[in-house]
Amino acid sequence: VKISELGEFGLIDLLASMINAATDKDTQAGRQLILGIGDDAAAWQAGDSVQLATVDALVENVHFTLETTHSTGSGQATWQELGWKALAVNLSDIAAMGGIPSYALVSLALPGQTEMEQVRALYRGIIELAQQFGVAIIGGNMSSAPLVVINITVLGSAKADKKILTRSAARSGDKVAVTGYLGASAAGLEMLSKHLPFKPEAADALKQAFLKPHPRVAEGQLLVKHGVRAAIDISDGLLSDLGHICRMSKVSARIEIERVPVHPAVKANFGDRALGLALSGGEDYELLFTASAGVIDKAKAAVKCPITVIGEVRAENAGEITLVDGKGQAVNLAESGWEHFISS
Amino acid sequence: VKISELGEFGLIDLLASMINAATDKDTQAGRQLILGIGDDAAAWQAGDSVQLATVDALVENVHFTLETTHSTGSGQATWQELGWKALAVNLSDIAAMGGIPSYALVSLALPGQTEMEQVRALYRGIIELAQQFGVAIIGGNMSSAPLVVINITVLGSAKADKKILTRSAARSGDKVAVTGYLGASAAGLEMLSKHLPFKPEAADALKQAFLKPHPRVAEGQLLVKHGVRAAIDISDGLLSDLGHICRMSKVSARIEIERVPVHPAVKANFGDRALGLALSGGEDYELLFTASAGVIDKAKAAVKCPITVIGEVRAENAGEITLVDGKGQAVNLAESGWEHFISS
Repeated sequence: VKISELGEFGLIDLLASMINAATDKDTQAGRQLILGIGDDAAAWQAGDSVQLATVDALVENVHFTLETTHSTGSGQATWQELGWKALAVNLSDIAAMGGIPSYALVSLALPGQTEMEQVRALYRGIIELAQQFGVAIIGGNMSSAPLVVINITVLGSAKADKKILTRSAARSGDKVAVTGYLGASAAGLEMLSKHLPFKPEAADALKQAFLKPHPRVAEGQLLVKHGVRAAIDISDGLLSDLGHICRMSKVSARIEIERVPVHPAVKANFGDRALGLALSGGEDYELLFTASAGVIDKAKAAVKCPITVIGEVRAENAGEITLVDGKGQAVNLAESGWEHFISS
Repeated sequence: VKISELGEFGLIDLLASMINAATDKDTQAGRQLILGIGDDAAAWQAGDSVQLATVDALVENVHFTLETTHSTGSGQATWQELGWKALAVNLSDIAAMGGIPSYALVSLALPGQTEMEQVRALYRGIIELAQQFGVAIIGGNMSSAPLVVINITVLGSAKADKKILTRSAARSGDKVAVTGYLGASAAGLEMLSKHLPFKPEAADALKQAFLKPHPRVAEGQLLVKHGVRAAIDISDGLLSDLGHICRMSKVSARIEIERVPVHPAVKANFGDRALGLALSGGEDYELLFTASAGVIDKAKAAVKCPITVIGEVRAENAGEITLVDGKGQAVNLAESGWEHFISS
């Protein structure tokens, strides 16, 4: 069986069972482990705090193409944007645990003909975002390679006396909610790669959403502070990521599609494809979470960004997601989320 | 300036100054940081222990080529050997800090046509070594890519009341010592890639040294326990790695080449090239350290592997390494260590 037939999630499932079976609970590392493979970040007890760790990779021509001229707006990322995004996707994983990011390790594989100034620009992007969140870059690795691969590991922590946000804590009766607006990142990629001629303001919003996502770090910490326990960040797409929560929590979800907060610039420019981009586009790096209506109200009052309730968690048919319209009628949408190895 | 002109170490130096200048000492992460970029692993204070983190990458056709048939002995690694080695190089970095490895995150970039069984074999290799050292695999990432890139991050710890091993702690008057025997890994690579017809026992030892290095984890902990403070693991090559210690510690070193413990299988099969392989071959993953003669005697008595004193640390001409023969006469050797981007 080739991994392209199995798909990213099938592969991860198989490897996770192999790895979990091999993890020795009698070692100190095994005893202190709180969460291994399967959540946004791993978590373990270290003294009186919980430590968090996550890793993400950006691969040239898979996750991005590089700008080779000074012209912009071509779907290509500058080196600085690339650095920002490579760190942002990891900070978003720590945010989805309700954690505080602290340290980053940057492992670069680069062609020998890369210009020093390009590598410096990459680091300017990483450093710009790192400084916003008080993250120190403490190590890394440098290899030659025929194409650019950026691997960033981010370490963080959570206070032991508070809980962390996990994918497995959704409970029947919870509301499903999401921060910010959805669909703008996928719309931005499409706009850039197809050279779609949008008005400057919309074009800028979509481009920023795709190239410079803002991880919801402060929001994640406020969610956990106000009693939220279940969350994931939207990287694969709302439906795909909600599916992860449903499977891990052994619950189902019912989403009212008219409540989904489609980004205004997506609504204005993508017509009847806007909802599909919001549901399945991915890379929004917003937080998708579940909690009681009361907890969500408290969270809403505490965070600065919009929080929208889009549905609810149910017990029956665990793992399933039902989409309904304003009248409660089930609707079908073909697209789901982004998955590696399987070409869509 | 292209990075191939600057070289790996020049690039790392420039990035390290850029990153260190950007690190905010007033953040919690900045305050707790003990060691950032420049040592075998990063170190920071977390509660009453010291946490360690390191990352290393293996890139296809740069660090390894893959076995595509069932024939062995061609310089190609099996997937299982590859998994072992990808973890081993990281455990060796934790060993070089005198730390205890605890957790690993595995980020894989793989072509879609990779067979599931190959990925399982890779993980069997990782798990086999992880279990030997009580390391739990707690997370990772999976991307598609046109070639195989394996990034492993290893986290570990050291007791706060004991010291860690650093590259900057060598002091004038220290002896320079090394664990085990040197040169076997580079000799193994050459034997495999040139199909050199050695006797089975030697061939097996050299092949194992290259494909399945054994990180000196227990030895690193014993060194620090018995008072050693300065160490590095030999990945680039003895001279190159000793150069890192000398520059970071602002000292020089004098090495008696006749004392260098060349691996017996290298001595027996590589004639007058044996010493060069031991000095510059790299990837031996032995520990190179400095300490007083008395501390080294205590360490010798405590560890099971051979420890050989090969020279001494001096104050004058900081950064320089002098090689001398049995009569104390300076000798010159052209080769130095392995460096990325610059082809030798």
